[in-house]
Order: sequence, then C-alpha cells, then structure tokens
Amino acid sequence: MKIRLAASSGFCFGVRRAIQMALEARENGDEVCTLGELIHNPPIVQELRDKGIEVCPSAESIQNKVVVIRSHGIGKQELETLQQGGNRIIDATCPYVKRAQEIVSSMADYPVLILGDANHPEVMGMLSYGNEQTRVVQEDTDLSEERWQKLCVVSQTTQRLDSLQNLVRKLLPQTLELRVFNTICLATTQRQDAALALAKAADLMIVIGGRNSANTRMLQQLCSAQTRSVQIETEAELSAELFDNVKFVGITAGASTPAEMILKVYNKIKEINRDADTATCSEEIPLFKEESC
Amino acid sequence: MKIRLAASSGFCFGVRRAIQMALEARENGDEVCTLGELIHNPPIVQELRDKGIEVCPSAESIQNKVVVIRSHGIGKQELETLQQGGNRIIDATCPYVKRAQEIVSSMADYPVLILGDANHPEVMGMLSYGNEQTRVVQEDTDLSEERWQKLCVVSQTTQRLDSLQNLVRKLLPQTLELRVFNTICLATTQRQDAALALAKAADLMIVIGGRNSANTRMLQQLCSAQTRSVQIETEAELSAELFDNVKFVGITAGASTPAEMILKVYNKIKEINRDADTATCSEEIPLFKEESC
Repeated sequence: MKIRLAASSGFCFGVRRAIQMALEARENGDEVCTLGELIHNPPIVQELRDKGIEVCPSAESIQNKVVVIRSHGIGKQELETLQQGGNRIIDATCPYVKRAQEIVSSMADYPVLILGDANHPEVMGMLSYGNEQTRVVQEDTDLSEERWQKLCVVSQTTQRLDSLQNLVRKLLPQTLELRVFNTICLATTQRQDAALALAKAADLMIVIGGRNSANTRMLQQLCSAQTRSVQIETEAELSAELFDNVKFVGITAGASTPAEMILKVYNKIKEINRDADTATCSEEIPLFKEESC
Repeated sequence: MKIRLAASSGFCFGVRRAIQMALEARENGDEVCTLGELIHNPPIVQELRDKGIEVCPSAESIQNKVVVIRSHGIGKQELETLQQGGNRIIDATCPYVKRAQEIVSSMADYPVLILGDANHPEVMGMLSYGNEQTRVVQEDTDLSEERWQKLCVVSQTTQRLDSLQNLVRKLLPQTLELRVFNTICLATTQRQDAALALAKAADLMIVIGGRNSANTRMLQQLCSAQTRSVQIETEAELSAELFDNVKFVGITAGASTPAEMILKVYNKIKEINRDADTATCSEEIPLFKEESC
C-alpha cells in the first residue's frame, strides 16, 4: 500500500500566528481568553484550555481581560463591545480576513456580495463591515432577476476559486461595472488543488480536521467527489477495516490541523499497514513540501 | 423551403443615429464629410457619397468643414487635430463606445486591458484615451506569467460576452482587484445569440454585411461553426445553386446593414425559391421582432 501526503496540508500561517499570539500573551502571565474557539479544532482548543487560555462565548461576558481575536476575525459590534469592556485586545485576525473586512468597509458606494457561508463567523464578521446593500451569496444563489449599475464581489477566504469564477461569470451579463476582489487566500487554493490531485489517484483519502471546520469540510467534499474519503479529527478514529483492499491512501488536512496531528495519523496508518510503501517520503512529511513524496 | 430571419438583425441604434446625424447636417446645406467611412458597409457609404457626404482619410486633411465622427469613435489626437483645423464637429460616436472611452480615460490609476481587435478603429480610439499601461488583448492572449495588484478590463462593444467571461475567469486567480466594465453593447449580444440559435436549426445561413465589418465577420464565424454559412454584401451575390438541397435557410445581418438590404436579400431568396414557406412571416421582417416568424 502506498501512503502519500498532499502538499500544503494543515496549518496555514494565519492559524499558526493566532496560536502563537495567544501562547505568547499567556506566557507573559496575563489572564488570556479567546472570543469563541481560537480555531476549529477541538484537540487544539483543549490543549490551549489546559494552558489556561479560556474560551468565552460572547463579547459581553469579557471584562478587563486580555482577549485574543481569532483568525476568522469578529464583527464590528463585537469589537466595540470588547473595547468598551476595558479589555486589552490582541488582534490575531488573519491578514487575509482583515483585508476582506477592510474592502467591505471601503466599498460604501457599492452593493457588495460576499461569496461564502452566511453562518460562518468569518463571513458574519465581514458582513458587519458592510452597508445595507451588503449580503451573502453562494455560487448557486439565484440572482437572475437582478441588474446592477455597479457591484462589488468579495469572497470568504476559504472559498473555492472555481466558485468565485463561476459567480463572476454569471454576474457579468447583468452588471455594468463589476469590481471583484479576489480575497481567497493562496494557501486555501493550493491546499484544495493538491488534495484534489491526490484524490484522483488514491483509493482512499483521509481528511484530517475539526468537524466544525468549514475548510476541512470543503476538502472532504472535494475529495469524496473523486474517491472514497473519510474525515477524522484524530488518529484514534482510524481502524484496520478502513484499509481493506486499499492500495493507495492519500492524506490531507484542513487549515486548523497541526503538523503533529498529521504525523500521528500518518504513523497510525503505517502501524495498521506494516507493508506500506512510505520509506522514501517519511522524512519529508513534516515539511509539507511534496505533493507525492 | 423555410426562410427565417434572426431577431435583432441589422442596424443597431448607434449606426442608425450616425447616418441620421450625417444626413441632417447635409440637409442643412453644410459641406459635410466623415473621417473614415461612416459605417463598414460599402453600398451605404456609396449612397452617402451620392448625397454629397465625402469620406476623408485623415484628420489632417480636413479644414473648416463639418465633420461627422462615425459610430466607432476616433482617437484623442485625431479629435484634437480636427478641432485645431477649425472644423465643426458632429460627434456621432455610439454612446456605448463613448462610455468605453470615458471609462478608459477615468481609470488612470489602473493598468487597463481592452478586450478586442487591436486593428479596429473603435479599439484604437479607446486605446488613445488610456495611459502607458493600457493595452489590447484577446481572449487567448497568453497572460499566464503576469500578476496584478489591481487591473481594469473593458471590451470592444462588439466582442462576444463569452470572450469577456473567459478572459475574466483567466485573470481572476492572478489579480487581487479586478474591475470589469461590461462595455459590450446589448444589441450585439442579442444579435449574436439570435443568429446562433437560428444557425443551429438551419441548413444554410446567409449573413449580410460589409466584408470589412468586424461584427458581421463575427456573426459569420459563429454561424459557420454551426452550419453552412455564406457572407454577402448585397442580394446580387445570391445564386440558385446556393440553395440546392436546402430545406431551411436562416438570415442574419451585421450592425451596419440597413433594413432595406435585408429585405432585398429576403425577396431575392424568395424569387429563387418560389415554393418557400414564408407566407406567415413576410410582414414582420422589416420590424426585426421575431426570431422565427
């Protein structure tokens, strides 16, 4: 059996940066909390809790603390509430998300469509910076009856480039001026492309990441359209039966999955499949450099 | 044999307006000329010549006259030369073209790509309003090595919407801000869509328009990808052999083809094919209202 890891799997720099910022604040001895879970990965959130970094459910509940804003960013109103509560704010909003928020905020003269999932915290945050004409759409939202003199389009950072391209194609005949900001982060596109390429060759894809992680679910969706795919959070979910008759297993991981977890999954697969052909690539895995190693 | 005329064939309003403006100026007794041929249709240009409206080849050659600027528009420098030559200028630039020129002019902070034919007078005019970063591209121009922080795209008014959509799709991954002005005129899109729909059903398409007319050549190209298509300028080019074994003939015409010429062609086809099934639609033809009448 071959085991291969998709390039660009796991932690993106925005997530790594947010965790570092939270840990550094805690090391300074401050009472640190995060507004909502810092990342969509339960084991990591537990690890942070163990280190004394609490998760607070709402901005109103936080007073006179050090608050880390997670990489997804937060809404304008929540930020104001945190500021009024006498908190010191450490803004770990991913710079890609920050850019998208700033664009929405600066496009006050335009109706703005945000391509994304209306229930995702990143999108809710972006929406809060918009005007009354700002709304959230998906690639297949029916907009056929609408016409615009001018229109702005931005995207949730973890959307598929293909979805943005399809939406723009659809809007062009109905719009005189279409101002599109490609706010999809490069890491997301690379991760999705690499996972897709690997899934096309593999019999089984193992997709690692929180079940509440939108970008991991998107990977699972992409891979399962190509081959049998299983989404897991930790290596404990792997069983020997999963690999019956499998000749080629591919691994990928969402943006909030740390390298350590990928390595644990990788080692567990090797343990289950002792004859696995991994000799040439095991060293490269923690670096996430090669698509097929 | 069935004969059907595509909806939206022939004269667009920009061309009709330009001819009217030239004729009105002439009726006022002025010495009227046009800079270049008023439209890309030799019989009409000859008719205008017969009425005393001369075609001048260059702006430098025109002094102290009444000059009609044709619907394609002219370059910024040519306009200045005409003004300096003491001429009275009647600007019959199509409002769609004018809008595209104004957009190019107002996008001084952006690199601008004009989707179109670099040798077409309309595009050369638009280009003259740009900055040193303004250039002309086609749908298949290789731009894969380029990256843009911000980029503006406009189009020659007679390009295919599909080409603009494909270009934008290609540019999106390479551009952070893509500002697209859909400057394709609605009449062009409607004319192309109607011709395409008819060509899919017909055994033979007759495409009427000047051989030097870009939008007519585009119609011929679209139709010939679907069925046998013949481009003609006048009814004199029609012969009986053309219709051997033809059961369904479709007719379309470019933006510079007058209703009278379409009717002449239509009548000639009827004369050649006396059994043609046209009874129900002949009255509607001059109105260009029905796709299949």
